[in-house]
Amino acid sequence: MHSVRFTTETVADGVIERDFLIGEIPGVLWSPVAGPAHAPLVLMGHGGGLHRKTPAQAARARGLVTAHGYTVAAIDAPGHGERPRSADDEQARTQMREAVTAGDAAGFESVSVRYARRLAQQAVPEWQATLDALQQLPEIGADAPVGYGGGISLGTAIGIPLTAAEPRIRAAILGGGFFVYQQQLDAARRITVPVQFLLPWDDEYVDRQSCIELFDAFASTDKTLHAKPGDHRRVRWVGVDDRFLPRHLGTPA
Amino acid sequence: MHSVRFTTETVADGVIERDFLIGEIPGVLWSPVAGPAHAPLVLMGHGGGLHRKTPAQAARARGLVTAHGYTVAAIDAPGHGERPRSADDEQARTQMREAVTAGDAAGFESVSVRYARRLAQQAVPEWQATLDALQQLPEIGADAPVGYGGGISLGTAIGIPLTAAEPRIRAAILGGGFFVYQQQLDAARRITVPVQFLLPWDDEYVDRQSCIELFDAFASTDKTLHAKPGDHRRVRWVGVDDRFLPRHLGTPA
Repeated sequence: MHSVRFTTETVADGVIERDFLIGEIPGVLWSPVAGPAHAPLVLMGHGGGLHRKTPAQAARARGLVTAHGYTVAAIDAPGHGERPRSADDEQARTQMREAVTAGDAAGFESVSVRYARRLAQQAVPEWQATLDALQQLPEIGADAPVGYGGGISLGTAIGIPLTAAEPRIRAAILGGGFFVYQQQLDAARRITVPVQFLLPWDDEYVDRQSCIELFDAFASTDKTLHAKPGDHRRVRWVGVDDRFLPRHLGTPA
Repeated sequence: MHSVRFTTETVADGVIERDFLIGEIPGVLWSPVAGPAHAPLVLMGHGGGLHRKTPAQAARARGLVTAHGYTVAAIDAPGHGERPRSADDEQARTQMREAVTAGDAAGFESVSVRYARRLAQQAVPEWQATLDALQQLPEIGADAPVGYGGGISLGTAIGIPLTAAEPRIRAAILGGGFFVYQQQLDAARRITVPVQFLLPWDDEYVDRQSCIELFDAFASTDKTLHAKPGDHRRVRWVGVDDRFLPRHLGTPA
């Protein structure tokens, strides 16, 4: 089992930000400067083409640290951020770009689904190894309640099979903004923990109905769909329940 | 123009509850024992078969008074609560009951739509007269920001045409739980104020897709769909944005 190797540390506004490596996977851990051990741990998955410290994600992470004393972890998805891109990654990116340029919606969807499926297959065990390693840290341990904190797009394409596979995850923020495929629906049917589902109502590419079917598929008795107008790149999640994670993960004593 | 005639007054837990009549229409006004004048006024429409002081509605009203210092008004819908039922009302109720007993879903929908359409046509000018009269009260006046506070079912069947017709309403909580008909979609397309839309995901009778189309129809750029599992009689709206009204109506100074 790999352990967490911290590489850099900065402190700002009451939040410690530490980059780390787990094997070859680069990650980041945000935590409060002061707070009790075993605070809830939120795993955050970034969107397609982005990375673990994308500004919107970093801001949300810092918000959870500041508001609730949580610890938040993010890792770069395969072929994203500081990770090397394989020939397959490069080819998928080229094909997606070409399909969009050519206005080939079906081609874009089919390349995107193949790419997302491959990334998710690789990312789920990476996240599980990350969680194993983080739980070896004394300030986290096996007692910290764990949640998946989104976001939409690739973060959900990975988050759904991860939440389905990982009994340590007690609640998950998931959403639309990606092409839903059959394995996602199958995995959603195995998820029983509380789910908050964020649906961009006017996604430029993704069929709304497919995301509605995805929400419908979660086996969770406690699930809430929040839909707002806009494409997934522009939607603002004002007015969404920000008590979801505290309600299910608690707040540190 | 009718004015407000108060009939009874009780005080409990910091909330004054006053029954009133406006012409022949019975209503109730909940307001804080102490607070500034011209606080936001929320109009609440009860569900089908219920009345202005149905426990869930009274609890929500008292919550708005206590949490934000708002004034909340509710009136009995035509043929509901203390109001006399016409022969048409009795016939509609009998037909709905018979259709449900017979398992005649199409018949239930068609009677329900005819009944809701008639009630909404009558209720919209009644609500407007109510608002006229309430604005004559010095503690409300023309300066109190006005919102429509739900709920789903008949409260929305009336609330949509009311919000479309009434420029004084600045924000509206609406929802599913009723059979959507064409005039509702038409009225929704005329609504531009912020809308919070509550969708019971598993309504026993109402087709989910029709409510999704209704949410889609609102012309509002600021609209949010919140969906939760359950039939409209049983759904609990935990985790819905309760800052919606304060964000759009403000809070008293």
